[in-house]
Amino acid sequence: MRRNLYTDDHEQYRETVREFLAREVVPHHQRWEADRWIDRKVFAAAAQQGVYGLQIGEEQGGAGERDYRYRMVVCEEIARVHALSFGLTISLQDDLVLHYLLDLTTDEQRRRWLPGFASGEIIGALAMTEPGTGSDLRGIRTSARRDGDDWVLNGQKTFITSGIMADLVIVAARTDPEGGSRGFTLLVVERDMPGFTRGRKLDKIGLPGQDTAELFFEDVRVPAANVLGPVGSGLQQLMSHLPRERLGVTATAIATSRAVFDLTRAYCFERRAFGHPIGDLQHIRFELAEMATEIDVAEAYVDRSVHAYNAGELTAVDAAKGKWYVSELQKRVIDRCLQLHGGYGYMTEYPVARAFVDTRVQTIYGGTTEIMKELIGRDLASSG
Amino acid sequence: MRRNLYTDDHEQYRETVREFLAREVVPHHQRWEADRWIDRKVFAAAAQQGVYGLQIGEEQGGAGERDYRYRMVVCEEIARVHALSFGLTISLQDDLVLHYLLDLTTDEQRRRWLPGFASGEIIGALAMTEPGTGSDLRGIRTSARRDGDDWVLNGQKTFITSGIMADLVIVAARTDPEGGSRGFTLLVVERDMPGFTRGRKLDKIGLPGQDTAELFFEDVRVPAANVLGPVGSGLQQLMSHLPRERLGVTATAIATSRAVFDLTRAYCFERRAFGHPIGDLQHIRFELAEMATEIDVAEAYVDRSVHAYNAGELTAVDAAKGKWYVSELQKRVIDRCLQLHGGYGYMTEYPVARAFVDTRVQTIYGGTTEIMKELIGRDLASSG
Amino acid sequence: MRRNLYTDDHEQYRETVREFLAREVVPHHQRWEADRWIDRKVFAAAAQQGVYGLQIGEEQGGAGERDYRYRMVVCEEIARVHALSFGLTISLQDDLVLHYLLDLTTDEQRRRWLPGFASGEIIGALAMTEPGTGSDLRGIRTSARRDGDDWVLNGQKTFITSGIMADLVIVAARTDPEGGSRGFTLLVVERDMPGFTRGRKLDKIGLPGQDTAELFFEDVRVPAANVLGPVGSGLQQLMSHLPRERLGVTATAIATSRAVFDLTRAYCFERRAFGHPIGDLQHIRFELAEMATEIDVAEAYVDRSVHAYNAGELTAVDAAKGKWYVSELQKRVIDRCLQLHGGYGYMTEYPVARAFVDTRVQTIYGGTTEIMKELIGRDLASSG
Amino acid sequence: MRRNLYTDDHEQYRETVREFLAREVVPHHQRWEADRWIDRKVFAAAAQQGVYGLQIGEEQGGAGERDYRYRMVVCEEIARVHALSFGLTISLQDDLVLHYLLDLTTDEQRRRWLPGFASGEIIGALAMTEPGTGSDLRGIRTSARRDGDDWVLNGQKTFITSGIMADLVIVAARTDPEGGSRGFTLLVVERDMPGFTRGRKLDKIGLPGQDTAELFFEDVRVPAANVLGPVGSGLQQLMSHLPRERLGVTATAIATSRAVFDLTRAYCFERRAFGHPIGDLQHIRFELAEMATEIDVAEAYVDRSVHAYNAGELTAVDAAKGKWYVSELQKRVIDRCLQLHGGYGYMTEYPVARAFVDTRVQTIYGGTTEIMKELIGRDLASSG
Repeated sequence: MRRNLYTDDHEQYRETVREFLAREVVPHHQRWEADRWIDRKVFAAAAQQGVYGLQIGEEQGGAGERDYRYRMVVCEEIARVHALSFGLTISLQDDLVLHYLLDLTTDEQRRRWLPGFASGEIIGALAMTEPGTGSDLRGIRTSARRDGDDWVLNGQKTFITSGIMADLVIVAARTDPEGGSRGFTLLVVERDMPGFTRGRKLDKIGLPGQDTAELFFEDVRVPAANVLGPVGSGLQQLMSHLPRERLGVTATAIATSRAVFDLTRAYCFERRAFGHPIGDLQHIRFELAEMATEIDVAEAYVDRSVHAYNAGELTAVDAAKGKWYVSELQKRVIDRCLQLHGGYGYMTEYPVARAFVDTRVQTIYGGTTEIMKELIGRDLASSG
Repeated sequence: MRRNLYTDDHEQYRETVREFLAREVVPHHQRWEADRWIDRKVFAAAAQQGVYGLQIGEEQGGAGERDYRYRMVVCEEIARVHALSFGLTISLQDDLVLHYLLDLTTDEQRRRWLPGFASGEIIGALAMTEPGTGSDLRGIRTSARRDGDDWVLNGQKTFITSGIMADLVIVAARTDPEGGSRGFTLLVVERDMPGFTRGRKLDKIGLPGQDTAELFFEDVRVPAANVLGPVGSGLQQLMSHLPRERLGVTATAIATSRAVFDLTRAYCFERRAFGHPIGDLQHIRFELAEMATEIDVAEAYVDRSVHAYNAGELTAVDAAKGKWYVSELQKRVIDRCLQLHGGYGYMTEYPVARAFVDTRVQTIYGGTTEIMKELIGRDLASSG
Repeated sequence: MRRNLYTDDHEQYRETVREFLAREVVPHHQRWEADRWIDRKVFAAAAQQGVYGLQIGEEQGGAGERDYRYRMVVCEEIARVHALSFGLTISLQDDLVLHYLLDLTTDEQRRRWLPGFASGEIIGALAMTEPGTGSDLRGIRTSARRDGDDWVLNGQKTFITSGIMADLVIVAARTDPEGGSRGFTLLVVERDMPGFTRGRKLDKIGLPGQDTAELFFEDVRVPAANVLGPVGSGLQQLMSHLPRERLGVTATAIATSRAVFDLTRAYCFERRAFGHPIGDLQHIRFELAEMATEIDVAEAYVDRSVHAYNAGELTAVDAAKGKWYVSELQKRVIDRCLQLHGGYGYMTEYPVARAFVDTRVQTIYGGTTEIMKELIGRDLASSG
Repeated sequence: MRRNLYTDDHEQYRETVREFLAREVVPHHQRWEADRWIDRKVFAAAAQQGVYGLQIGEEQGGAGERDYRYRMVVCEEIARVHALSFGLTISLQDDLVLHYLLDLTTDEQRRRWLPGFASGEIIGALAMTEPGTGSDLRGIRTSARRDGDDWVLNGQKTFITSGIMADLVIVAARTDPEGGSRGFTLLVVERDMPGFTRGRKLDKIGLPGQDTAELFFEDVRVPAANVLGPVGSGLQQLMSHLPRERLGVTATAIATSRAVFDLTRAYCFERRAFGHPIGDLQHIRFELAEMATEIDVAEAYVDRSVHAYNAGELTAVDAAKGKWYVSELQKRVIDRCLQLHGGYGYMTEYPVARAFVDTRVQTIYGGTTEIMKELIGRDLASSG
């Protein structure tokens, strides 16, 4: 069915992105994965080409373009070349870090930080999760106390995407032990602040190029000028920015599902067994038919979500529905696609194999499937 | 998420339909189910009120309104009052019989038949399936041979929705034994044609008010003036009208899923066990959250299908995707809703129980789930 | 794989049961379903033939045979002739009522009641559930207070299997309002006790021959001689008899799954479409292969449970595992078998259609799937 | 429920195995995984300790013990320490290579090869699969032609487990181009035969310690004394040895499922969120309850299969049922267990994460799930 999502402008942008990826990402991605490190200069190139950071205002070197359909195009094109480690770092900038910075910064902060993002020289990260607190943000123990013009930050974070690479980290800390849900604040920690150290790069089962790390803060003096938004509003900021983060996961999920499905479909009609393409087998045709349907159905919801997001109407609950449903679909689709590849599906050189391990975190980060259902369930209880 | 489907016109129409159902259907539906027969005069009232037959041209007494969103409104309102037996007869008129008659009739035929449909005095049926041929239309053995100005029809049909009630039956017959897929023709058989008899009303596990029957044709002389469309084009007509039929099943499926979900949600927050509403239990909240999500996701696809249908762009494959997916969803949702009702869910007086048995045929008629997957799978093979 | 369950004695017994069913049940079952009533005299015949009540002691006219494998044989043979309404009444006697009576009666009570069961003249029922208390036994509000030699019983029960037919009903009542979980007692109410009335026969979506009813107790004077087990031990008795009840559901579930699978397999290799048996289609072969596997796997667990039960070692948790798992399997298998029958599967005259509606209560009564999981989950928590 | 599988002898053996693993495997396994190579000398130690190769006759240095329950013990203990790469090499020896060698060798061959296996100095492999033939053994293109006392072997194999490490490879080759299914023969290729080379070690998503490779044969002269079984019987040998191979996969599957479930259960009652162990959440209790049930149910079937195997009665079809069902269960269980670990489940240092990637090949090798269903389905068709 014809999607009603894109205009010609988006399709032209797609050409730019596709060309960029072919030239700057595809030839290197396998090496980045083997090195467990993505060459930093690709981000500068990507930002300058407008592959991410489009939403940054023109005065800071961006395009001031907040239409989410451009992000969606990027997700689709990255999925098509199976560059998920690269894609996640991009998504982290666009769907999380910049989203916070654009909303919460003062003019002075914007001038200080955003040009670096627009040129791709600054990579940011967001540090919420701690050992022992997963989804339970109220359990955050990292704390900062005011001391003169600074906040003195102490604590530990884990599972921080781009934690090693990041030049700038938005840290959620408890700033008022008595403040309850009003006692948290977001602080921007920069690369060379004394007392800020990084733990080892965590060894994940997938997304090897992409770094994930523990961060340590020991008496880090963060100037008050690096507070993001009002003191005490941290938890509220985290909550209000979740829909965008979740839409980011959803966008990657639908794009990856379709990309892996497409290559698997092609595989099934090329690969022969018992003298015929395996796609001639009814079971395989049914597998493909089921996946094609499920992807189309989910895509209709995602597209509707993108329109709603652009209109400022995507609720936390609707974003949660998309997040769990489409990431679970992605998991299911890629698992089935791997199976259709037989033994080849287990070999890292096949994109479906890499997609399988890269995918497994999608139902976990950005709020687990279970947290999403809890959120939706509570909404049903209260609005029932 | 805000649906983008309806305008104020549709919402006004919804009020009319809702009022009609409350007055003319709700008070009687349980009796119709017990009697295993729906009072014929409700159809006259419904047609005159515009609850169905809207698409009939103004010159024949209809409204000439082909916007499928009005049908969708009717499906939703019927589902909300759990009048599925009534709803199926309506759907049969609008999504099948009238759809054929409007497309394929000559002026003379239109004048002869459509006013009766517009006034609700004529009920139609469509006779495709035979004992021994389910989905395999090429296996049709009912045949008609030309004899002067008539076609002499012989054969047997089964599983004919409204077979007992129908005044006019569109019969698919083989008219050229050598003609292959070009050897079938649609003939309109009328109530009192000699040789046309009806078998017993079949005893189904659900939809008791709605009649399903076997039909027998023994040397029935059907005048050439009752041929629908070109002689030899029967199979092609059946194929080309399937998307609308399938959209009809899909529309009922999504509407019923949501209606039964809504009442179940209400039930879960009213019904108490162990001192609390059962909706306080995490498992039940998760069940509700999953269903709410799945229904919203599917609805986005259905709404997209309705727009596509209105634009003349709904392909057979896209209609097949909706048909199997949403009818399977309906089955799954209602089964889970029944379980949430505990023992009450097994009692016929509870709408969820009736919905359960009424629903089970949705994945079968209008092309089984398996036929839909076959169709989609073949399309993937050829377009791959 | 060879089952290691039966000996020649069981196979000989099977012949007796099979012959009995062919003669006394098969010719009448359809009529009983239409009448919504099973002819009482079949129970006398069945009891006298040893089709149930085997476990009653020889002194009361039974065989004193407690080997559960004989019950299993009966379940299998009843499933094979699709006489589930009859089967449920039998199961109620053997797996519930007699199980209580044999364990809890005094000599006097045994002499008074058991010969009537052995001859099939007395049918019993068990009344636990109340409107508003499903699985929550502590919520029972039916109460009895001591008055001289009698207990005066007041309250209401619902969903009582064989509630209309029963001559003797074991009623769970609160006898000590302050007694907590030690405040319940089982009382035997007999047919003609003043104040004992029956509500309407409930209209269920399946098992029509089998009656389910509401019961009302208004100042019913139950003599102390009709107390079952120690006063105050009612809840404990209910708990301790649950494994057997659940094994009864499990036994029916595996037997019905296999019986319906077997007929469906036969159907798939007889029924032709597109010129071939539909079993030639890979999808259908896979459906059958999956069901055959799942049934064999579950059967291994059921057989192990039967051995454990015979050895007095079947725990409540292990019975709960079998109950939910195998009843859910039954639901799944029969739903798939119905689908493989196409339109015929929706017609009541087909055994698969009747099995579908009869089956739906299996995951509900005897403790819902959810209650079973709760029980198992708590055990995992405590033994973890 | 009490398993009826083991005797005291097996439990004593378990102690030996457990002690061996703790001493010789656990301290090194992580390094082996990082090195992508298992230290060869552990196999010598294992064989000498009787951890594998028990079935080798006493005259060749083994124990002549063919009771499969000892293998089952080894599978369980290896799973418990999450040493799946090590376990697969062991399984390859016991369930495949030795199984062929014990059945098909002449006295001379036995004397030549088996002592090396008994002492753990020889590691064997089995080379069936070729690029382009997965499950379709008749498509094998590797061929050997007789030349004097030798067979001259040419061709290529892929996905060969322990292909790099193996000293002795059983190769399936076509020896009679006109011979149809009687045209294949098994040849034993030894390490230093000229023309036998190994390709690169394949990079898999899991089981890193375990090597999988391509093998190349270019005019390898294999002496006639290295033919295994009668010339022309190769395909039949492969078919007849499949049940044991499949039982090996099944044994690993059930053992791994239970081991990962056990550690996850412990995790859920230790790990706290929102102030409570996460196992207090009903959803998590239900997850655990479902897995506990499914594992117990499957285990009953596996135990029955082991008894049948020991009795020489495990059919190819029954082994296929176990293979697909239990390996799919393993996949499902470990995926759910990973999810219950949240972000930690994605980190390689957690056993559940490694189990996740190690597991994914279980539904593929030894005959895919789809091939198993095809086999079972055909049996149902023929025996129907």
